[in-house]
Amino acid sequence: MTQAPLQQYEEIAAHLRTAIREGVYAPGDPLPSESELGRTFGSARGTVRHAIATLKNEGLISSGQGRRSRVLNTVPSQSFDGAISFTEWCRSSGIRPGQQTQWVMRRPADPTLAAPLHLPDRAPVVSVLRLRLMDDVPAMVERLNYPLEVGKHVLNFDTDSGSIYQRLLDAGVDIDHVTRTIDAVGADADDAELLQVPEGTPLLRVRRRAFTSEGTPIESSDDRYLPDQASFTLTSMRGAPSSASMVSA
Amino acid sequence: MTQAPLQQYEEIAAHLRTAIREGVYAPGDPLPSESELGRTFGSARGTVRHAIATLKNEGLISSGQGRRSRVLNTVPSQSFDGAISFTEWCRSSGIRPGQQTQWVMRRPADPTLAAPLHLPDRAPVVSVLRLRLMDDVPAMVERLNYPLEVGKHVLNFDTDSGSIYQRLLDAGVDIDHVTRTIDAVGADADDAELLQVPEGTPLLRVRRRAFTSEGTPIESSDDRYLPDQASFTLTSMRGAPSSASMVSA
Repeated sequence: MTQAPLQQYEEIAAHLRTAIREGVYAPGDPLPSESELGRTFGSARGTVRHAIATLKNEGLISSGQGRRSRVLNTVPSQSFDGAISFTEWCRSSGIRPGQQTQWVMRRPADPTLAAPLHLPDRAPVVSVLRLRLMDDVPAMVERLNYPLEVGKHVLNFDTDSGSIYQRLLDAGVDIDHVTRTIDAVGADADDAELLQVPEGTPLLRVRRRAFTSEGTPIESSDDRYLPDQASFTLTSMRGAPSSASMVSA
Repeated sequence: MTQAPLQQYEEIAAHLRTAIREGVYAPGDPLPSESELGRTFGSARGTVRHAIATLKNEGLISSGQGRRSRVLNTVPSQSFDGAISFTEWCRSSGIRPGQQTQWVMRRPADPTLAAPLHLPDRAPVVSVLRLRLMDDVPAMVERLNYPLEVGKHVLNFDTDSGSIYQRLLDAGVDIDHVTRTIDAVGADADDAELLQVPEGTPLLRVRRRAFTSEGTPIESSDDRYLPDQASFTLTSMRGAPSSASMVSA
């Protein structure tokens, strides 16, 4: 993963991608004209065209063919990397990711940690508490837990240097699929201190489990976002089941 | 939509479906045996087999072939009906849906309502505030808004009798696709009173817009769930983009 700054066309593409996903431009809406976008971003027409071509390639907007491109009735999508890695997600959204590690701990798993990792009680796990930043602003509290065999790669890693996900990939860990459960939770004392909000403030919680291709859990995590920093969007079409599913408690 | 009670095999299937989606049974895990399931639900073996066959048909579990069925590495899915209709979603989850209408109102749209419906300011809209129940327990506060042309079907409808979605379908309204944005919000005074929780309690908010096939918005809504009643799950596979996407503010 390169940490090079985004090129200007990538920034414009990220802005438009976000606006489409958030419904600022709904399906069928035209995008602003090239000259309007050029003025908005202070960019040359060639840069704007490059950004628009990027979105066409992603299937988000129509070809235009001389007229303005329109937003397609498309399903918004998120890459697998972006689904598992805050660092990757930020970069694809044109945001500078940051992190402040609070602690990295090797400890015996209590039952609530052992169960989702399919470990016996008191098996050794590696846990991490990090504050994550978006463009230098506190945005999310990250609680990561790994079985020791995976977590040993984290113990030797400077968790303030960037993506643990990339570190695990580099170490050859098989990360095949992830499940995420999204709900709301009030800030606890740790969340409140790190995010600089009162205890009980509503947070968007994303609990994630990552598995090998054989179905062995290798991570169990809990990310809590300030809701003014992130939300989830999904589009459902008649006749097509949605891959995200609301579930009852 | 029939309101007939669920058959017993449907109840068992709904229970297992929810357990799979919530990760109680992870990919690769075996389901309990037929005799265990029979004891758990007090059901005959034929009923349990019917439930298991239903899940096989849905692609959620392996064929087993004499051995126990295992949970597949599958993407959980939600029907289009379930994505737009609380009533449909409850029924597919084995829950009895309920509603208590607080008011149905015809009013001029203020700018925050006009924009998502692509209406001019002060155009007439029909708005509904309902408390929704799951198995008779308060679970969600529903705020629905329709352009008058669609909402006229709601004005003549007993909104305590069931699904507005079904009413609109019966009236021939073209409901082609929906976008949903999921985040967290604190209960306001109305939410607090209806859900019987203190103001500021974290709620899971689902804002939805529904469109015709031409992209005309026909509904803009805001559903707020007690987080102990509902959450979202999604599964992402390496190499396959996810249709749900986290977006920055």
